[in-house]
Amino acid sequence: VVIIDAPEGRAVLTLYELGGLDGRRYSQFSWRATLALAHKGLTAQTIKVRVSDKAAIAFSKQDKVPILVDRETVVADSWKIAEYLEDDFLSGPSLFGCDTGRALTRFVNAFVDRQLIPKLAPLIMRDVVEIVDAEDAAHLRKQIEAAFRRSLEELAADRANEITGFRRILDPVRASLRAQSFLAGVSAGYADYILFSLFQWARIVSTFEPLESTDALVGWRERMLDLHDGLARSEPSRAERDGGAR
Amino acid sequence: VVIIDAPEGRAVLTLYELGGLDGRRYSQFSWRATLALAHKGLTAQTIKVRVSDKAAIAFSKQDKVPILVDRETVVADSWKIAEYLEDDFLSGPSLFGCDTGRALTRFVNAFVDRQLIPKLAPLIMRDVVEIVDAEDAAHLRKQIEAAFRRSLEELAADRANEITGFRRILDPVRASLRAQSFLAGVSAGYADYILFSLFQWARIVSTFEPLESTDALVGWRERMLDLHDGLARSEPSRAERDGGAR
Repeated sequence: VVIIDAPEGRAVLTLYELGGLDGRRYSQFSWRATLALAHKGLTAQTIKVRVSDKAAIAFSKQDKVPILVDRETVVADSWKIAEYLEDDFLSGPSLFGCDTGRALTRFVNAFVDRQLIPKLAPLIMRDVVEIVDAEDAAHLRKQIEAAFRRSLEELAADRANEITGFRRILDPVRASLRAQSFLAGVSAGYADYILFSLFQWARIVSTFEPLESTDALVGWRERMLDLHDGLARSEPSRAERDGGAR
Repeated sequence: VVIIDAPEGRAVLTLYELGGLDGRRYSQFSWRATLALAHKGLTAQTIKVRVSDKAAIAFSKQDKVPILVDRETVVADSWKIAEYLEDDFLSGPSLFGCDTGRALTRFVNAFVDRQLIPKLAPLIMRDVVEIVDAEDAAHLRKQIEAAFRRSLEELAADRANEITGFRRILDPVRASLRAQSFLAGVSAGYADYILFSLFQWARIVSTFEPLESTDALVGWRERMLDLHDGLARSEPSRAERDGGAR
């Protein structure tokens, strides 16, 4: 059930995240933690768990990944992990810049979670169930279909049109990126990782393109894929896995 | 046409803003500048212009208030004014906290301008034309009715129901304010002034209440009204002007 991947054998931190078929790292919230770790110059061993396997993470006394384990300390929830890394690993670059930056990043977190995810996730969940095992697929299907009261197929049926609603919500982001390279300014901050995690998730689970090719966010997404020696890009996209071009 | 109000006779800064009937200070973008000035401990003489009187501000080579004049320097646009105050008046408290804070405040600016204003403004423009003179009223009516392709009366007709759409967009703000007293954290920053300016405008031009009484934003709005010795509260609300209670 569990795949351990400790590339350099020297990690003291452990990150629990979701693993799909062929070890696909498809959890968007775990990508926030993964990129926050890289930003701070930290490495962690990753332990991949199946989304339906709540026993594997019962030690954390809650039922969601990511979970960061630092010796005796267990931190669940991507936002809390970011704060933990910021406050306990002072040597690396800041994720928030300052207290005001942290407070406003919290707003970006809520904006992405409450406005953007509910508009994009239902459109591509149909694809997600194809890249996880049968038990996880049944678990996710049940969860999403209960939340939206429609089948995954119905939710995705008109996505070519419905994606315009998602794109419209990105308008304030687009306006910001006309003035600066990243949401956080001249370089990426945790606010960028939050937003990017949604696009990284989409890229891994689906070949459906959420952005128009002329969108200013396309250039930003490329810059995000390039960060930390192409860390996010090193995870194959769904198109690459399927053998097509993207 | 112009009313000069220099309370302490020592202002070196001049702020051009809109003046309605009885000198009502109803420009939301000017409130951003007014509160930013107070935040920095600065005073300015205010010059009130009518919204249809473009000749009065032609010197600025554009046609919108607020405009800040600092001796030979003319700064138009509320965002640029905030940046000018932050960069040229280093002694007062920071409006942004740090560069990341500034970059993310720019996102909040775009969020308020592009998501919130278009949802609230059409619902209460019918009330605005009652608190400006006839020429300004005609100017505003023409402008808004052209933009939305409906009469001000039609736009406001179902506002008791349509306001729910506005309230829903505030959800990320609400989530942030559950964790902190202000958008910018433990104390107000320019991000708060941006958002508050919309509620301050609504309070001045209309008796229509945009928030439910149970909304967490109500407490935040009260805190904003209290700041800087009740600066925003000192401008009478529409309800107060009309002789009713609010």
